[in-house]
Amino acid sequence: MTSQLIIFDTTLRDGEQSPGAAMTKEEKIRVARQLERLGVDVIEAGFAAASPGDFEAISSIAEIIKESTVCSLARANEKDVRRAGEAIKAARRGRVHTFIATSKIHMEHKLRMTEDQVVEAAVKAVKIAREYTSDVEFSAEDAMRSEVPFLVRIFTAVIEAGATTINVPDTVGYATPELIRERFAELIRLTPGADKVIWSCHCHNDLGLAVANSLAAVQGGARQVECTINGLGERAGNAALEEVVMATRVRKDLFDVSTRIRSDEIVPSSRLVSTITGYVVQPNKAIVGANAFAHESGIHQDGILKHRETYESMRAEDVGWKTNTLTLGKLSGRAAFRARLDELGIGVQNDDELNALFARFKDLADRKSEIFDEDLHALVSGHHGKEVNERYELAELEVTSKTGQTPRAHMVLRVEGQERPVSASGSGPVDATFKAIEEVARSGAVLELYQVNAVTKGTDSQGEVVVRLNHQGRIVTGQGADTDIVIASAKAYLDALNWLATAGKANPQTDEVM
Amino acid sequence: MTSQLIIFDTTLRDGEQSPGAAMTKEEKIRVARQLERLGVDVIEAGFAAASPGDFEAISSIAEIIKESTVCSLARANEKDVRRAGEAIKAARRGRVHTFIATSKIHMEHKLRMTEDQVVEAAVKAVKIAREYTSDVEFSAEDAMRSEVPFLVRIFTAVIEAGATTINVPDTVGYATPELIRERFAELIRLTPGADKVIWSCHCHNDLGLAVANSLAAVQGGARQVECTINGLGERAGNAALEEVVMATRVRKDLFDVSTRIRSDEIVPSSRLVSTITGYVVQPNKAIVGANAFAHESGIHQDGILKHRETYESMRAEDVGWKTNTLTLGKLSGRAAFRARLDELGIGVQNDDELNALFARFKDLADRKSEIFDEDLHALVSGHHGKEVNERYELAELEVTSKTGQTPRAHMVLRVEGQERPVSASGSGPVDATFKAIEEVARSGAVLELYQVNAVTKGTDSQGEVVVRLNHQGRIVTGQGADTDIVIASAKAYLDALNWLATAGKANPQTDEVM
Repeated sequence: MTSQLIIFDTTLRDGEQSPGAAMTKEEKIRVARQLERLGVDVIEAGFAAASPGDFEAISSIAEIIKESTVCSLARANEKDVRRAGEAIKAARRGRVHTFIATSKIHMEHKLRMTEDQVVEAAVKAVKIAREYTSDVEFSAEDAMRSEVPFLVRIFTAVIEAGATTINVPDTVGYATPELIRERFAELIRLTPGADKVIWSCHCHNDLGLAVANSLAAVQGGARQVECTINGLGERAGNAALEEVVMATRVRKDLFDVSTRIRSDEIVPSSRLVSTITGYVVQPNKAIVGANAFAHESGIHQDGILKHRETYESMRAEDVGWKTNTLTLGKLSGRAAFRARLDELGIGVQNDDELNALFARFKDLADRKSEIFDEDLHALVSGHHGKEVNERYELAELEVTSKTGQTPRAHMVLRVEGQERPVSASGSGPVDATFKAIEEVARSGAVLELYQVNAVTKGTDSQGEVVVRLNHQGRIVTGQGADTDIVIASAKAYLDALNWLATAGKANPQTDEVM
Repeated sequence: MTSQLIIFDTTLRDGEQSPGAAMTKEEKIRVARQLERLGVDVIEAGFAAASPGDFEAISSIAEIIKESTVCSLARANEKDVRRAGEAIKAARRGRVHTFIATSKIHMEHKLRMTEDQVVEAAVKAVKIAREYTSDVEFSAEDAMRSEVPFLVRIFTAVIEAGATTINVPDTVGYATPELIRERFAELIRLTPGADKVIWSCHCHNDLGLAVANSLAAVQGGARQVECTINGLGERAGNAALEEVVMATRVRKDLFDVSTRIRSDEIVPSSRLVSTITGYVVQPNKAIVGANAFAHESGIHQDGILKHRETYESMRAEDVGWKTNTLTLGKLSGRAAFRARLDELGIGVQNDDELNALFARFKDLADRKSEIFDEDLHALVSGHHGKEVNERYELAELEVTSKTGQTPRAHMVLRVEGQERPVSASGSGPVDATFKAIEEVARSGAVLELYQVNAVTKGTDSQGEVVVRLNHQGRIVTGQGADTDIVIASAKAYLDALNWLATAGKANPQTDEVM
């Protein structure tokens, strides 16, 4: 009988731990709304004890999201678990996810705890979590390097204490499908009470095997996969949600499970996460890469194939590829604009914010004849409301590109409301612009990454610029979109500086987890 | 006993079939030299019968490459096989790789041949190939959807006819590790003469499983893996060479094979292929993504780990990550410049070409204080010698970015040597520049992709612009690098137009293969 595979998305927690992928609360809410639309079962919204910002983001998402379970991560200590419990209080369905390391190396050198102490902490954490919700997940960090008898011992204890999901992460990403499948089968066979809980996998992609390992876990008995949109996540990332879901669907003959995912929301979800985090998707990425279906005709051309094969075919439309939808034009009014923002899950907090965004929209519509959904997402990127310190703003900029001449940027910056004229030369218009900004800001940050992508096809598309700055090890990402890429670059650089000026929002200091 | 795993790289053949990834002969030679340095066993250099350009590129590579076997693909017909045989004639070690489809659906609908006819064509092709070389590979296209008894029959026949490598491709990319492992084990068990040949896999990544499937093939008995740098290839691409190699190395305890790959050449190879094809690597890509080792300390911090674990650790340096190497400066002369180009495998055909490149270098050194290897690769990108029609050249360009003002580009184009002044307005400086160019060129092409990446860190880096144009289904990629991204954009657009003006170089019409 086909059983349900629970899709647990951790884009907002593990994904956000990618360098420079920090999101504002508003951005997290946009992603959460899209994940709900996609049909994700569990949204891991953050790590409540990591920072007040994380806590707030989780509680807001818990209030807003109705269809998906909202989850907070927590280390196995009372303070963490209670923060997580408080954060998910408003959720229609809330989960606390607590974890502790179970490998010898981690217990001895990181935790400095004995096996008995680790079991005790885990049991206590689960019991406290149960005071807040009946949906409690327990993870054995670094499980794939932990000893099976100890895993069986701790899992037995936490199941007795009330855990309802047991997660077995491959924290270092060095496992292979065979090892994972065998490990799950073994743990499920040996753990008393195994049949009363859902078994879950959480695979990292260091060797490029996260998706294959997740599928192998399903074959071994896992019924929850922890994954992220676009495979975002620390280092080489997590298992990509879109690949796991489509592999189980296309090869339903091999994996007898079904998910609640509405696959035609996959590509929109991928684009949204890519836009918000500034993490590009390579063209030869499975399912969501620009080329993934480029030669589609070659595979599925004839309907014949469908009859002959045991597997389901996969078409570009099935995963949400479609031509850009023209949504708004020059004559669209405030009401139409606001309605479309709502449909896209872009929350507007008050009239001031709506007015500011509408002014940007009108300005864009003057320069670009057709406005697509992608343009609206780009329009709000770099616009963080009150969450990010808006210390620096661009007032005016002029710079000329001329063959054989050194460009000089003349600009007026608004620094905490005060206008500051400044100019500088550089090796190109963007360099001159950045140097002019640094004349004022003197941030001492190093430019780690600069990239521009066109938001839509055609030469009048907006350019979306991503700037990643490293300031003494703190990495922030700034974004800016404009039909003028030099202006977009200035906006992105200023956005990154504003993130730097916002205390402690980037790179939540949560220690390395799972 | 540890046996050797043969690494067969098809970046220049399957990789080049990605839309817009067509390379010039010079570019292919640069990639081939890097693959040789990387320690690849077999370089599939192209498909000799596809076009005269492909033939020439293969013969040139066959002459230059000494350490690796050079291979040409050929359909199983006399003309194709003879062209392939001729193309590899100069190679110290040359291979002909012939293929024919073996699935019912392909035989009936594509080939319109009976099973007997298919076997006969395969045997004949292998025999003709043996006239040219003792190293002959046979592939059963769409093998994973073919019937095992027929595969056994055709493999038995081609082994008798002299094939030395038998390749079992997963053409549609829908197989899973278990299926692949079992299929290899079964075919090897059932085919008489199986022990006299090398078994090979060729996996596609449509479900994100190409690497896992390749490793499963190795467990099933394959001793050759066909793969590409960065997993480039049609649709979602092929198995990524770097992931396959590092997985077998890190988990030598599970895969008892060794390769000849010099792993510290992996990252330089990745960058070169990315620069030449314009295909970016996403930051969360395993091994070669910018973040792949971002939290390295978390995993391998303590030397302790090494002692405790069964697997080998993998450090960023092991796969060739290092800080940019400062190679040349403003005062470097022609000799130093040429020597460095040689070291990087960038061939210069004559003094005129060297002079042109050196002038570009001096111009760059005036604007950018430190010149890295990446800058030199960027310098020659978009410089195709005589292979690509140089119809359009940029003579002069001036365009101003100013907040609140519509940019207007003024430029002088050289069209087949004649200067043409032209100007146009646009929604940004890049749009204005492209519109001005189109005032003259009137290509009718659609801009499919526009992206800019900084070549190195720091604000004075060169921007490398990739422009992909679609002209009635023909897709070409243009590239341009400059410290001024507007000028780089103009160069990239003109480069794409020059590709369009060069007959039949892009997207070799080779039919869909494997």
